[in-house]
Amino acid sequence: MIKFFEKDPYAPIQYAYDVERVLHKSKSNFQEIMVIENPHFGKMLILDGVVQLTERDEFFYHEMLVHVVMHAHPNPKRVAVIGGGDGGAIREILKHDSVEKVYFIEIDEDVINVSKKFFPTFSCGIEDRRVEIKCMNGAEFVKGRDGDIDVIVVDSTDIIGFAKSLFTVEFFKSVRDSLTGEGMFVTLSESLLFHRDMIVEVQEAMKRIFPLVALYTTTIATYAGNWWTFSAASMKHDLRQIRREPKINTKYYSDEIHQQAFLPPKMYEKLMQKRLEW
Amino acid sequence: MIKFFEKDPYAPIQYAYDVERVLHKSKSNFQEIMVIENPHFGKMLILDGVVQLTERDEFFYHEMLVHVVMHAHPNPKRVAVIGGGDGGAIREILKHDSVEKVYFIEIDEDVINVSKKFFPTFSCGIEDRRVEIKCMNGAEFVKGRDGDIDVIVVDSTDIIGFAKSLFTVEFFKSVRDSLTGEGMFVTLSESLLFHRDMIVEVQEAMKRIFPLVALYTTTIATYAGNWWTFSAASMKHDLRQIRREPKINTKYYSDEIHQQAFLPPKMYEKLMQKRLEW
Repeated sequence: MIKFFEKDPYAPIQYAYDVERVLHKSKSNFQEIMVIENPHFGKMLILDGVVQLTERDEFFYHEMLVHVVMHAHPNPKRVAVIGGGDGGAIREILKHDSVEKVYFIEIDEDVINVSKKFFPTFSCGIEDRRVEIKCMNGAEFVKGRDGDIDVIVVDSTDIIGFAKSLFTVEFFKSVRDSLTGEGMFVTLSESLLFHRDMIVEVQEAMKRIFPLVALYTTTIATYAGNWWTFSAASMKHDLRQIRREPKINTKYYSDEIHQQAFLPPKMYEKLMQKRLEW
Repeated sequence: MIKFFEKDPYAPIQYAYDVERVLHKSKSNFQEIMVIENPHFGKMLILDGVVQLTERDEFFYHEMLVHVVMHAHPNPKRVAVIGGGDGGAIREILKHDSVEKVYFIEIDEDVINVSKKFFPTFSCGIEDRRVEIKCMNGAEFVKGRDGDIDVIVVDSTDIIGFAKSLFTVEFFKSVRDSLTGEGMFVTLSESLLFHRDMIVEVQEAMKRIFPLVALYTTTIATYAGNWWTFSAASMKHDLRQIRREPKINTKYYSDEIHQQAFLPPKMYEKLMQKRLEW
């Protein structure tokens, strides 16, 4: 069997996947894009040698990225997704009937096109009339906007390389100014096992900008470190509280997962004091 | 850099670790025993090609294996550990002042000796006067015992090969008969991501034997599937409730982790109905 060895400079374990077929390989203006087929995970999207998504387990990531803020917000109508060219986050957002408009801001058009071809179950929402695609840098999109967006979701590659601009105090300020008074924001923030210091940095930067900040986690087998974190912020409402009934169809997210996903207070405090000894 | 590729027939991702040094390699009557040194995880114990423990992250496993039942039990005095030749579970059990006697039942004496030599931070409790080592099959140890043990902990290799005898209805019956009326039992039960059906089987078998059964989880980066489960059973008391103050020194386990670790009820129900779609 042919093997794909992941190239993640920040992971102390290297993951190897069986490759049934290499379905696609190209180089965009931003990154190397590859699609392989694996007997267990199905089709896998790989950017610059790092696994982004697999058909089998993408729902853990997309559901948890999107539905926590979408259920904590009382009435999310206008949403922006920055990154997420595969379309998975868009698909989850469109499950909420309240949504009237989704700005889909992806810097790399090639990722959208590859996803449309190979991952129709991810990209199925992209053609929805409520979605407006803008192929541009997310940091530019939020710069100088009026506060007219209810929820902003950052669905980027890892916090290295060109995605770095989406994790600065400057960017968080623009995000805040783009949100309504009840607005919410969420971004991935790497692994609690392997990237504690990065998480603390992101949380500290967000705390300087947003009134309420929280950290929640899920387990994802195909991301290095597995114990994956999301950093969320809110202008007004507590992120732990569910404000609308979860009537949507999900495989993992639920009201009880919403509650249990947040880092317990004492553990969070230890993390922020850099006293988690692992 | 030399690489070690894990050989786990039940894992759809193969893990590879950098090897700084191979410190030990031998064959016991039961398995191949290897110790390597990795730049991130420190020394690693590998049995039959599968990573058992690493110096850096063993505490997630040992603390969660031991401290949930040890804190749910009102007064654990007599404890038995089946397996766990490295000594990590013993070390954690001895942190509880109530403990008067620990039966340490390890089938493979070579694992104890290798651990004493290479993992002194794991095996430090083995020489304690309260510990009685018996090199024998755990299934034999519990057979025909009077109900005189407060807590029984199974710390075995994966549920394949010779550890299989520790996951049968027969074995669970002997465990029950070995426990006092307030007794508790805990065993590893593989990954919620990769081995759902195995978990359901273990839970079903335990439910036929014990009055109270529960499932809880933790994340462990070096175990395939990462989202690791423990199956616990109790003769009388609810396992979720902490009955003694957690005064002991731990890196991960805490009262709030004790509460959050249990599978939420609706998710547990879905699991047992085999409706978790992943």
